[in-house]
This record gives sequence, structure tokens and C-alpha cells, in this order.
Amino acid sequence: MQIPVVRNVLEANEKMAGVVRERVKGILTLNLISSPGAGKTTLLERTLTDLGKEFKMAVIEGDLQTDNDARRVAATGVQAVQIDTEGGCHLDSNLILNALDNLDLTGVDILFIENVGNLVCPTEFDLGEDAKVGILSVTEGDDKPEKYPLLFNLAKAMVLNKTDLLPYVQFDVEKASRHARALNKDLPIFHVSATRGDGLEDWYAWLREAVKAKKAGK
Amino acid sequence: MQIPVVRNVLEANEKMAGVVRERVKGILTLNLISSPGAGKTTLLERTLTDLGKEFKMAVIEGDLQTDNDARRVAATGVQAVQIDTEGGCHLDSNLILNALDNLDLTGVDILFIENVGNLVCPTEFDLGEDAKVGILSVTEGDDKPEKYPLLFNLAKAMVLNKTDLLPYVQFDVEKASRHARALNKDLPIFHVSATRGDGLEDWYAWLREAVKAKKAGK
Repeated sequence: MQIPVVRNVLEANEKMAGVVRERVKGILTLNLISSPGAGKTTLLERTLTDLGKEFKMAVIEGDLQTDNDARRVAATGVQAVQIDTEGGCHLDSNLILNALDNLDLTGVDILFIENVGNLVCPTEFDLGEDAKVGILSVTEGDDKPEKYPLLFNLAKAMVLNKTDLLPYVQFDVEKASRHARALNKDLPIFHVSATRGDGLEDWYAWLREAVKAKKAGK
Repeated sequence: MQIPVVRNVLEANEKMAGVVRERVKGILTLNLISSPGAGKTTLLERTLTDLGKEFKMAVIEGDLQTDNDARRVAATGVQAVQIDTEGGCHLDSNLILNALDNLDLTGVDILFIENVGNLVCPTEFDLGEDAKVGILSVTEGDDKPEKYPLLFNLAKAMVLNKTDLLPYVQFDVEKASRHARALNKDLPIFHVSATRGDGLEDWYAWLREAVKAKKAGK
């Protein structure tokens, strides 16, 4: 009895995702997904600051409660809109459409959508994005790609964050990467410490390439 | 249109939770909830080992995929059953009922249910437990009780895990505790490092008291 309902929800979401796609045409749109506290906002703050002269960017922040993250992002000088899901465990394309009404997309190169911190539900909802980016922090354990396969299967890039904490935790980088690539053969994996600023150049290079490809209509 | 459906699901869950409650009568039943990788399984391994002579315990493990955690728990010599949610983001009381068919509850003092790693969805589903226990690790950030209020509001205990990593992360223990207690005035908060074994005595004392209260029919 539950399955058809869930399907209708996903179908309705898919339809509105098509409308989002029309609205963000030509703008590289990335859906950032991770567990709570994996470092999505910190990665965004760094990226917005470091690439601020190169690209015009905008951010949609999704949270259950509070607009803390939107305020952190706005402090970098970038346009940010908060979606408060009021307890909802993921963003959907209809929420994105509403948020877009409050963003000026003129000249924007990259639109980041920071999803609700949740390694499960957000993955099932297409937001009209070009790519899902999975963020995993080393403090969560190297078994996570195997235990939460859908995200690592669908993501077009993976950021392995908090590498500065590797000396203090048991985390086998090779094992986590192997499990992720078993699900997703050519997945690019960027090893970064967003708080320290380590390893971000490869992530930025990937973003530059993705913007270029988007503008070329690929 | 979506809301009545969700209500029906919660009502059906509530009904089965009542059936679970009958089945686990006299057994302290705890529903452990946290983000992925906050250390639920490690906390369980420690607890099962350290209290193994004092109490008879059993474990239900919930995961989207893999039976890694049930195998880790079973290695301590305790009865463990794995529920594979096949992608589902939380456990429900019907899944618990099925799992109970595979457990011998004779003489069991404590039944631990390790929920799917997710700080949102599991909280809404009553599993027939006596108490939800929220586990937060310091690497997730001190803003989490404020951003994910429902769990910290409903939990009867909170374990603040990975305190061994406090020197390496920005985490204000006082701030996190203050936000949690703003939601839940008398919430007991245990500061532990499950990997190192630090601070577990207060958690064990709470468990002993809870078993005693349960057996006294409180």
C-alpha cells in the first residue's frame, strides 16, 4: 500500500525537477549530500571564498531548522537562500523552485544546493541538478560507501573530508575508495580538509571543468 | 495530499509498537539513534563486553545494507539479529516484530535496537522502546542539537561520543549541552570515548538504574 504513494511522490518530484532544469539552464547546479556534520557548509565557505573572483555563485541551503548555514554562507558575500524543511528529511524539487524565486540567477555560473544532512533520503530526490556530490568525512568510518550505497552509486564526485583527522581515527582510505568505486567505477574522489584548506585544488579543477562543460552545452 | 498518508503510516506503526511492548515486557528496550558513523556500534561493543557478566543482553541491528554491524556485535558473544531495510531510512515497529521472532528473549535484561544511521527519520517511529538514546559525536559539530531538535527533545539520554577527538576539532561542549537541555531540561548527557573506553561508567550507571526501574515496573 505504501509503495504506490512513494512512487507518486517521486513522479511528482521528477516533473518539477524538469521545471527546475529549465530555470537553471546553463548554470552548473550541484546537489551536495552527506551525513550531518560531514563539513558541507565549511567546504562551501572555502569554495565560495577561493573561487569568488573566478565565478559568480549562489547557494540554496536546506535545513530542518535554523538559518545558521545560510548566514555562514552569506557572510562570504555570496547570494544565499535558506529552505526550512520544518522537520522534512530531504529537499525536493518543489522546494527548490520556491527558493529560485528568491534568487537572482543573472550571470550565475554555479548554483550549489546544500541538502539536509542525511545520507539516505536526499539521494532519491532529483532536484534538477547536473550532479550529486557525496561528501564523506573520515570520522564517519570507512564502511559508509558500502553501507549507504545509493549516494556513492549516483554521485558524480566524492569529497573525502576531514583528512586532517586521519592520524586520530581508524579509517582506511584505500578501503573506502575501493568500496565507492565498486559502486561507481570512475568516481573522482577528492581528499580534502575543508577546515585547513588542504587538497582543495583538485576539487576546484573539477568544478572548473564542469562549468566549462556546462557552458559548452555538454 | 501527502500528510494523511504519512499519518496512516505513523498510526499503523504505533499500533504495532504496542504489540512489541507486550513482547518485550520487563526487558529494558533502548532505541539508539544517531548520524551515520557517530559510534553506535562501537558503544554497543564496549557495553556488551563490559556489562556481559552483569546483564543478559540482546541486540537488533538496523542497516540499509550489509550485516557488518550484527557480525561485530555477535563477536562479543551476545545474541544479535540484523534487519536489512533494503534502502529504508529508519526502522519501524513491524520490522522489530519480525526480528523478535528470531531472538530468544528468555532472561534478557536489556534489548538494544541500533537504528539506521540517520538523525532525522528514525526519531518519528516508536519501536515499542522504553527510551530513545541519542548519540552525537563531537566531530559532527556543536550545532546539531539545535539543527536536529526532535531527537534531542525526545531522547531520555544522550551520549556525547568521540571526546578523544576534542583537542582536534572545534566543538563547544557547553554550547551543545545547553542547546540539548533547552529542548529537554533534565537530559542526562554522558561524555564518552567509546573507542578508548573513557567515561563509560556514568552510562553504565544509568543503564543499571534503568534496568532496576524497569524490573520494578516503573
